[in-house]
Amino acid sequence: MALIVQKYGGTSVAGAERIRNVARRIVQTKDQGNQVVVVVSAMGDTTDELLELAYQISERPDNRELDVLLSTGEVVSSTLLAMALHGMGYPAISLSGAQAGIRTDSAYSRARILQIEPKRVVRELERGNIVIVAGFQGITEDMDITTLGRGGSDTTAVALAAGLGAEVCQIYTDVNGVYSADPRLVPEARCLEEIHYEEMLEMATYGARVMHPRAVELGELFHIPILVASSFNEKPGTLIHGGVSMEVRNKVRSIAHNLDVGKITVVGVPDRPGIAASIFNPLAKAGINVDTIVQNASTQGITDLTFTVGKGDLARAMEVVKPIASQIGARECASDETLGAVSIIGTGMQNTPGFAARMFSTLSENNINIQLITTSEIRITCIIDAAQVQQAVRALHRAFDIEEK
Amino acid sequence: MALIVQKYGGTSVAGAERIRNVARRIVQTKDQGNQVVVVVSAMGDTTDELLELAYQISERPDNRELDVLLSTGEVVSSTLLAMALHGMGYPAISLSGAQAGIRTDSAYSRARILQIEPKRVVRELERGNIVIVAGFQGITEDMDITTLGRGGSDTTAVALAAGLGAEVCQIYTDVNGVYSADPRLVPEARCLEEIHYEEMLEMATYGARVMHPRAVELGELFHIPILVASSFNEKPGTLIHGGVSMEVRNKVRSIAHNLDVGKITVVGVPDRPGIAASIFNPLAKAGINVDTIVQNASTQGITDLTFTVGKGDLARAMEVVKPIASQIGARECASDETLGAVSIIGTGMQNTPGFAARMFSTLSENNINIQLITTSEIRITCIIDAAQVQQAVRALHRAFDIEEK
Repeated sequence: MALIVQKYGGTSVAGAERIRNVARRIVQTKDQGNQVVVVVSAMGDTTDELLELAYQISERPDNRELDVLLSTGEVVSSTLLAMALHGMGYPAISLSGAQAGIRTDSAYSRARILQIEPKRVVRELERGNIVIVAGFQGITEDMDITTLGRGGSDTTAVALAAGLGAEVCQIYTDVNGVYSADPRLVPEARCLEEIHYEEMLEMATYGARVMHPRAVELGELFHIPILVASSFNEKPGTLIHGGVSMEVRNKVRSIAHNLDVGKITVVGVPDRPGIAASIFNPLAKAGINVDTIVQNASTQGITDLTFTVGKGDLARAMEVVKPIASQIGARECASDETLGAVSIIGTGMQNTPGFAARMFSTLSENNINIQLITTSEIRITCIIDAAQVQQAVRALHRAFDIEEK
Repeated sequence: MALIVQKYGGTSVAGAERIRNVARRIVQTKDQGNQVVVVVSAMGDTTDELLELAYQISERPDNRELDVLLSTGEVVSSTLLAMALHGMGYPAISLSGAQAGIRTDSAYSRARILQIEPKRVVRELERGNIVIVAGFQGITEDMDITTLGRGGSDTTAVALAAGLGAEVCQIYTDVNGVYSADPRLVPEARCLEEIHYEEMLEMATYGARVMHPRAVELGELFHIPILVASSFNEKPGTLIHGGVSMEVRNKVRSIAHNLDVGKITVVGVPDRPGIAASIFNPLAKAGINVDTIVQNASTQGITDLTFTVGKGDLARAMEVVKPIASQIGARECASDETLGAVSIIGTGMQNTPGFAARMFSTLSENNINIQLITTSEIRITCIIDAAQVQQAVRALHRAFDIEEK
């Protein structure tokens, strides 16, 4: 008898029929002799509807109150799923994040999980219950409700799997798994059978939206294998884990892309210590997430500093940076929102030369100009013209030989 | 500085505009130098919508899950009201029933309050917060969420007022207060300035829907004055308390009526011990609430047993009673759903003869036939033809001289 944690996303529980469908899938797992803990998101557009209510009342709703408000969405879907299981004759019980022992800090709207105290979950499992836990939420030391922010329900699921020592955490969603590239751009992209945590992390960070990096990180930390699969069919999905075989690892595994790229260049910056800090500290304080930072080699004490942010943050970032740029004596401050990013990812790239060269020549053969390059041990990212991103993804997918076999 | 508990019903918080209106009223009370605790119901039709969701999933949703589901409605409105107060520049915090320390038994869907442990409420008041408590809900010893059933939010408010030692519990609703009779039936009915707990209890039980008897009972037990007033205007409302002056008490205070009357008569019952129990125990087990029981004087060892139930329970009650009636050798079992009840109520009726006589002769003068009579110390109720109820209420209102002065 294994303990399995499953997570179902908002699309999978949007409406009575889909909730019953999810219940049938849970029952299959239970009937195979497993103990099952299920984490659910809020139904369909519930979270947006609750947000709309809040913004009808207040332009700047208080974060604590907003968290309590939003947390009701997952509570609703968890009770309905428990009722659907009862209707099929299976004992089940819904628990809020608080009842499931998801202890967090008190950073409302983006709380971090401090600890899992799953006593109640264990007790209900021992009673033979299927345990349905409301995702995306936790509770502080003061017994105040928090929400976990982006990727919250995935994070709840992986954290619970870690806290309970589950065999696997299964993330059911509306796609078939993790693809070698976005299948909307690359029809020949293939659904990967397995992928290493680190590859998934890079993919999640650099464009693939199927899982939030935060949940993947947690999975890696606690050695919890994560299966990503569709709740709408029986396809096997993709297993994210640490034991991917050597053969498979020794190549580029996927092409990620991202069209949400805004670029800011501070031109002609006097190159002296503290300049970078004077720009990026205020951005961090303004809550703006900076993706990529590149500083060109300094010529005669003058350098160009370039960085990217989400397009939604571009205007605000310019407001922050412009006055600083003139204070530090930079020549100019320019922004560009016509860009996109394309990345090749694979643990096989470690200690193996030639990947970068092949990427650059493939782009060059396609007349694609590279504006910025950044790399990690297992990833190379090029910032290019947004209009050429699709062409780049397809060309790279072909060049690195990762088509469906 | 007084501590005041206010309760706002679902109609009063249906939509952003009404929530802001409620916030303005709360702020007035706060600005007068009071500490304010506010209990809210779910917005408008929320509870019905959640119920509909549940019944889409299951014909017989589990009571525990249903309670968790329904409890989200009051949590939503409590957070929105807190946000509205923030928007007006007032510190406020929402608390769930659990956080406010509403401890109940585990009778899901109709839990009884065992105890109030309002530590958190007190702490938030001391911090200067207006405290908004989600009504209608509590928490068991096992930290499971319960709902309080009918009159739940009123009961939360009065119980909190008792637990906190509040000066008054103000129930804001969509009527101006407690009337001497239903103003839709009797245009000259007047809104009472004050009324005794016991009178209100009889009125609530015998037809007036403005407050649930349960909350009134609690108010009487803990000596909490309860003001019933409209949230839509500034009229003074009705104060329910124990100190109503002698003069005012020495008369009929109001005429209540009820059109939800189903009558069952078991005809020709052998009059021997245990017969009543054999009928009413199974009804109680079936969860059917019996309002009035009358047994006619026995003639030659044969008696007729008559009782009333809500019309919604009539068919089910007949199913329960019919087989029993034949078992105990009754001649026949008949039901009637064309009836209504009219009551005169007033603590002044205690120890004062003549009220019953005047009631019966007033009905007789209006050609209204009385089918059943029941009385308490401060109430006389006659079951009559439903079609004559309005006429009866108006005639009695005139006869007992309780018109608007």
